[in-house]
Order: sequence, then C-alpha cells, then structure tokens
Amino acid sequence: MKIISILGSTGCIGNQTLEIIKQNPSKFKIAGLTTNNNIQLLEKQINKFNPIAVAVMNKEKAEILKYKIKIPVYSGIKGINKIAKLNETNTVVNSLVGSIGVEPTYKAIIAGKDIALANKETLVAAGSIIMNKAKKNDVKVMPIDSEHSAIFQCLNGENKKDVKNIIITCSGGPFKDYTKKQMQDITKEQALKHPTWNMGEKITIDSATLMNKGFEVIETYWLYNIDYSKIKVIIHPQSIIHSLVEFKDNSVMAQLGTPDMKTPIQYALGYPERIQSDLKELNLIEIKKLEFEKPNFELFPCLKYAYESGKIGGTMPTVMNAANEIAVSAFLKNKIKFMDIPKIVKMAIDKHKPLKNPTLHQILEIDKKIKIETEINIKNYSTIILKS
Amino acid sequence: MKIISILGSTGCIGNQTLEIIKQNPSKFKIAGLTTNNNIQLLEKQINKFNPIAVAVMNKEKAEILKYKIKIPVYSGIKGINKIAKLNETNTVVNSLVGSIGVEPTYKAIIAGKDIALANKETLVAAGSIIMNKAKKNDVKVMPIDSEHSAIFQCLNGENKKDVKNIIITCSGGPFKDYTKKQMQDITKEQALKHPTWNMGEKITIDSATLMNKGFEVIETYWLYNIDYSKIKVIIHPQSIIHSLVEFKDNSVMAQLGTPDMKTPIQYALGYPERIQSDLKELNLIEIKKLEFEKPNFELFPCLKYAYESGKIGGTMPTVMNAANEIAVSAFLKNKIKFMDIPKIVKMAIDKHKPLKNPTLHQILEIDKKIKIETEINIKNYSTIILKS
Repeated sequence: MKIISILGSTGCIGNQTLEIIKQNPSKFKIAGLTTNNNIQLLEKQINKFNPIAVAVMNKEKAEILKYKIKIPVYSGIKGINKIAKLNETNTVVNSLVGSIGVEPTYKAIIAGKDIALANKETLVAAGSIIMNKAKKNDVKVMPIDSEHSAIFQCLNGENKKDVKNIIITCSGGPFKDYTKKQMQDITKEQALKHPTWNMGEKITIDSATLMNKGFEVIETYWLYNIDYSKIKVIIHPQSIIHSLVEFKDNSVMAQLGTPDMKTPIQYALGYPERIQSDLKELNLIEIKKLEFEKPNFELFPCLKYAYESGKIGGTMPTVMNAANEIAVSAFLKNKIKFMDIPKIVKMAIDKHKPLKNPTLHQILEIDKKIKIETEINIKNYSTIILKS
Repeated sequence: MKIISILGSTGCIGNQTLEIIKQNPSKFKIAGLTTNNNIQLLEKQINKFNPIAVAVMNKEKAEILKYKIKIPVYSGIKGINKIAKLNETNTVVNSLVGSIGVEPTYKAIIAGKDIALANKETLVAAGSIIMNKAKKNDVKVMPIDSEHSAIFQCLNGENKKDVKNIIITCSGGPFKDYTKKQMQDITKEQALKHPTWNMGEKITIDSATLMNKGFEVIETYWLYNIDYSKIKVIIHPQSIIHSLVEFKDNSVMAQLGTPDMKTPIQYALGYPERIQSDLKELNLIEIKKLEFEKPNFELFPCLKYAYESGKIGGTMPTVMNAANEIAVSAFLKNKIKFMDIPKIVKMAIDKHKPLKNPTLHQILEIDKKIKIETEINIKNYSTIILKS
C-alpha cells in the first residue's frame, strides 16, 4: 500500500489526487496534507482522509486551524518539509506551485520517499541536485504531468539508448493564432481560458506564454537524461497525443488520451500498475482529426528562453523561473501586460552570471534574490517596459 | 546472431527482408531461401547471400535451377518445409502468400524456430493450432505487419491484463469514399493502386476489400489472446498511426511512422533490439493532420465476414480465407468483378458447417476442398453472381 503525503492538497492537482485516493482505498492511504492558506478546505480534507499531521504555509492560519483539529498542525516551509519527510509516508505528491516546491522535494528524497512530482519548478530550478540525490537514494521521481507521463509510458520496456528524439506536444495555448499586435492587449481573463486543459492560475498563464512548455523541455532533460538537441516541441491543438518518443529505427511511440490531469496522477500513483479509470474514453472517431504545427518562437519567446537557459545550465534556469514567477504574479494582479512577462524574464537572464554547480542553498538564495530584484524591477520600470 | 531462412524470398517482403539483412551483416545471416517460380531472382539472391539450401515450389523450375547452382535445391511444398526446418536456421521469415504458408510455419515451430510471420493466412486459417504449438515449443511468433508490430510495441513493458481494447487502424483503401454504385465498376488497375502502402498483388486487393483488415482482426485475436469484442477497427487514411492499445486507465498507446514495411520487418528481425534505420523520419508538422473515421461494414462486407467467422471459430475462418484466395485470384484474372469477391466469400461461409477443434490435416483438407469448390462456383455461377 502506498502511504501518501500531498504537498498542496487544496490545489487543483491536490484535489484530484484525493479523489483518486478515495476511489482506491485498498491501494492508497493519506499520511499528511498541506495547504498554503485554504484552511477551510484543508479541514474538510482532514475529516475525510484522517491524516496523521498537516501543515499550513501561512503561520496565522496555522494557528487558527490548531484550535479546530486534534492532529499536529505544522507551519511555514519547515512545516511543509516535516510533512514531506513523515515517517509513515512512502510516497510524496508534490503539487506545490512555484520554487517553494524545491526544498520539500529535496527533503523527501533524503528521507527515502518516492516522489510524484507535479511541481514543475523543482526540476527547472534545481534539476541537477534533485536528480542526483534521487539516484543516490534510489527513489523514484514519477512525473505528474500529461507530457512527461506520456514520455514515461512511451519508454516502458524500451532501451533508453535507442531513443532518437523526444517530441513534447503543446496545445499552443489560447493565443496560438494571435498576431503580434493582438498579443499586446491580452487580458488576464483571456489568458486564464485555456482551450484544452483545466488547471491552476499560475500554470495556465505559463501555458499561455508557452513558458510551461519551456519548463517541460527542461524537466525532460532532467527526467530522461537526454540532450536538448533531441527534445522537440510540436504544436498539437487538440491535446490528445500527450507526447511522443522517436527511436533509432524511426518507430515513434505515443501516448494518447482525453485531456484530464487525473490520468497522469493515477499513473504516477499506481505505477507500475495501471488503475481502472472512470474518465471519458478516448474516441478518435468523434475527435475526427489531430493536427500539428510548428511552434512560433518569435511570438512566444519564453519557450526560446527556456531552451537557452537549459543549455547554459547551472543557476540560469533558476533565474528564469524566479523572474517568471514574479512576472506571472504581477500579470495576475494586472500590474503588467501579458507580453511584459517574457521581457521581464529576459531582463533577469541577461543580467545573470550563472554558477556552474550550485548547492541547494545557493539555488534557494539566488531564487530569493532574483524574486526581490524582479519585484523592484516591475515596480520601478513597469512604465518603461510597457512602452518598449 | 540470427540465422534466417526466408520462405518467399523473391516477393515484396522477402526482398525487403534481404535488404535489411544486407545492411546488418553482424546481426543476420541467411541459411535458406525459397521462391514460387522466380528462379532468375532466386539465383541472384543465392549469389549474394550464400544460403545453405533453397527450395522452388514449381518442380520444373526447380530442375532448371539445379543445373545452375551447387547447393541443394528442394522442390514443392516438401521442399519449402525442408527450408523451414533447416538445422542451421534459428529464425524463419514466412512471407509466403496464401494458405500455402500454414504448413511450413507449423513445421518450423515444431523444429523450434522463432517465426517472423508476414503470411497472414497462417493465423487466419490455423490460428489455434499454430499458437498452441508455438507456446508448447516456446518459440516466438513475431508479426511482420505494421498493425501487429504496432500492437506488439504498444504492449512493451505492459501487463496484458490491463488491456481494454486494441484499435487496429486501416487506411480505408482506394475505395473508402466510393458509393455503392461506383463500387460496381472497380477495375483491377484501380484496386491495385493502394493510397499509402506498396505491397504485393494479393494483399493489395485484400486491402481494397478490407478483407486484409479482417484478417488482421483474426490475427490479433490469436497473437494477443483478446476477445473479438475488444478488437476495434478505425479508418485512418494517412496510415501514420499503425495501431493503438487502450488500457484500463483509459491511457492509449500508439505506434506511428512513415508507412514502410521495412519498419515492421526490422522490428521482427531485431527484437528485442531496435535496429538503426535509413528510412524517412516521421515529420508530423509536414503531415499536418491525422484523420479518423468509422469503417463502413455495408460497403466492405469482407470485414464483417471476418469478425463473424472469427467469432464462430473452428474451420470457419479457414473457409473464408480459402474462398477469398480463389476469389481474389479470379478478380486478378478479370474473371469476376470486385464486388463479387465478398459474394463468393459469403457463399462459402453460408454453406460451411464448421468443425470445432480441427487438426492441421483437417484444416489443410478443408482449405483444398473449398478452393476447388470455389473455382467451380466461379466457373459455373459467375454470370449469376454478377447479375445479383
């Protein structure tokens, strides 16, 4: 039986993970849960799933919750880390959003837990450290992400030496066919309407800028130990083929399915077993056609920056991620325009002199520093950026 | 090293197999070759690949060849069987066309050879006997067929218990969008022009009637031990997705590639290793779209007959296959019309009372009997059939 702690259980992935756990009581049990500040929902989850302990990032909210429940309530990043290393847990689902997810993943790996990783920023900001530690401690890092789950499934029973290319599909987001001019006036509401996937706010904006696809390129590099020149991105608006792997005999394996995050969550939790699903079956006759296009690096420079940062390596992707996190947050608060996001990311990248083999501490320090600098940049220079 | 005998080395698959063997001298060597009657080409192949022995189906041609070369030349079906069981061989490629392929497969399995099976009629006519014998003798039956090769690859590293459906793709052939009226006047030349695959004459006609897809349904039943209700056929005109497997978690695996028979031949020969290929890489951006439709069982009744015969089992598929073989041959000789093929097949099926667990001898006898009866039917009744 897998005894699971979910970091970020009140979010989109967290909730879906709990639904799957509820449907499979003979396979999964909950040990720990955490939230950023949604203690109302967390309390409900506690009553339903009887965890051993929980954590709340927001310390005031943690204090409030303590008076309502009988199990230990930890708080802050230290509290999250505690849940990540709980003795009773053997599998940690990390569905935190942002680089806050890096440290708990690291702590869980050191404690020997298998990781089901939905937090994209873990591998983007600290891929080298995380994957080395996972290898050393012999823990599995299973991706919770339709694309990486697809790649994982395509590699099932295959020899990794035979891989020629990994082809990551991308819906193209809501602005795939926008002109440069149209891109200037994108509102938050437009950006939050993803054509095929239903996700949290941060990742939905990252999907609209294609930064999310850039993250996935970097994650693919770390998860599958493959050169960036062999990682391709292809636009596939229907989001039915979730990714493909091309082998040296030119045979291409693909994983397909109705776009629903439950499939990769289930796969990551159940692996190596597949779990019976109540989701909608794929019906290709109904879908009629699957289309493919080249990605437009000019209109979506974030994807280009991700390749470039990834190839440079060291702390460069950390910086790209930190700047992006602040820029997206500012966009969601209507402080900057949509096309300012890549500009802000580029400013941070251009200024940074990357460290080659950073420690986790250095990564976390740089992440913090870049976030502060980017906040200031946005405050001071937003008018300049907007005009350019 | 795989020491290979090719049954039907002068045909389409045989030739491509030899090309692959030539490109991979460290992996493969030829022990035996056979031809129906093309001794000119066989002689060239002998000079190039130095087999230990060869066989020619046509006895007169075998006598002619004997005077030209120094190695043993066997003849007739007994000669083919001898090549199938050659001591030096560990892998037999059966690329014979028609039910003539059944017996040599059986003999090769008894002699402990792994089988790379391009001969469709082997499993259609004698699936039960062949698969039981293969299991008993612990030999591999690897399909040389883009669809079954795709299914095989989709099942790599998977648990067969998790399979929900197998979805076989079908180009639809050249007459996919024909009306019932247009179907009446199809010429041999039209039927021999397949839109996506370049194959031999018999299989090209079977592809045009969708009987070939019906054969693949029956082969899938035997190769993957799956109920007919779980074997679906889907029209996919681009022939890029070669087939799909749906698992119980609604995840669907697919194998894709440029339509080229060399890919499944390579896979069958090289398995479990993938062999470097010089074929055209799949380029989905160039292809732009993949389409899907329902098959039309009314316009292509052969596909329906295959499902029905397969479900009835016993000698019924043997009979369907025998009648089809004669009907296709008659069509290729301009003796009957295209839409007479399903009518002739149906006549044979309707008349036959199937044996439940036939022996190989019984299967071969029934095959022979139905072929003679169908020849007579075509001679006597072709005018009646044509009018109906």
